[in-house]
Amino acid sequence: MSEQNGAVAELVDQLSRLPGIGRKSAERLAFHLLRVSENEAMALSEAIRRVRQDVRYCEVCFNLSESETCKLCGDRSRDQTKLCIVEQPRDLMSLEQAGVFRGLYHVLLGRIAPLDGIGPDQLTIEPLVERVRTGNFSEVIMATNPTVEGDGTSLYISNLLSEFPVEITRLARGITAGSVLEYANREIIADALTGRQKL
Amino acid sequence: MSEQNGAVAELVDQLSRLPGIGRKSAERLAFHLLRVSENEAMALSEAIRRVRQDVRYCEVCFNLSESETCKLCGDRSRDQTKLCIVEQPRDLMSLEQAGVFRGLYHVLLGRIAPLDGIGPDQLTIEPLVERVRTGNFSEVIMATNPTVEGDGTSLYISNLLSEFPVEITRLARGITAGSVLEYANREIIADALTGRQKL
Repeated sequence: MSEQNGAVAELVDQLSRLPGIGRKSAERLAFHLLRVSENEAMALSEAIRRVRQDVRYCEVCFNLSESETCKLCGDRSRDQTKLCIVEQPRDLMSLEQAGVFRGLYHVLLGRIAPLDGIGPDQLTIEPLVERVRTGNFSEVIMATNPTVEGDGTSLYISNLLSEFPVEITRLARGITAGSVLEYANREIIADALTGRQKL
Repeated sequence: MSEQNGAVAELVDQLSRLPGIGRKSAERLAFHLLRVSENEAMALSEAIRRVRQDVRYCEVCFNLSESETCKLCGDRSRDQTKLCIVEQPRDLMSLEQAGVFRGLYHVLLGRIAPLDGIGPDQLTIEPLVERVRTGNFSEVIMATNPTVEGDGTSLYISNLLSEFPVEITRLARGITAGSVLEYANREIIADALTGRQKL
């Protein structure tokens, strides 16, 4: 195909650069985009263009935003005393979709990962400390991923924040709702036992 | 997210309209497009735009093309006496990638599917018959999909073409290379036995 049709081959190439999209899937998507209405195909093209043109990081919490500060930071109805720290905007989105937390967020834009050459300076830790220093927070909830690097990042940050009069918590760990104990690994069981709660 | 960020939500929406892309995958793809270089994201946006703007159907074989006739039809080094009939451009692409067939193609742009209201008139059967009538073909190879509708379409077309002095063949059916007999179903085994070949 690449010899016979430049535009289709180029689209297949571009689509197959997306994570989780192999060559065959890229071809299938390309033919889909050729078959749907012109409006639908153009809407996707335009959405990609617009997201790159209009979206930046909120100057306060580093969530994605189309203005200087994001809507969450500007929403005075949210609990201004609780700050939830996440690695990436997509983590914030997961938490928001759950709809349980009504406080504010801070997005680190990564995690400390020495093996990848990512140190604290490359994250938004400095503005975070500044926010906690000048803000009115009573609780900081560490919601980094439950991985070695996520835990290390949480630990690093909680040390930095220990000088401020805020309670520092982290997300509960244990067995996941809807799962079966049979498939939980040693680490999950250990977390569940260590953090066992009164019935 | 949809409340807090229009452009990202719009991109997630558009991505989740793609076949095989669920909500979670769409979110992952959207964040990927936000994270990669602006050039890479724009290249995808542009590739989608360009494919819809520049690509049309070849006037001879109805393959996708950026000019009136496609490169395959214009390639005089290909065997002008063999015509391979496929349902969709993507089928043609699969055959071309295998690199075994060096003749010409005709793309039906679908298959006869009465249940979906698709009759022979909605396909490129009329120009196909005209091609065979006026062309110099000695063999027409039916390469529709091995489904009830694909087989029905082949049968319909082979009846129409029976008045011309061309040999009409279809792709061999049997067990697939690399597969295991254990998992072949009744139909596959039946095809393999019926079409058994001399060793």
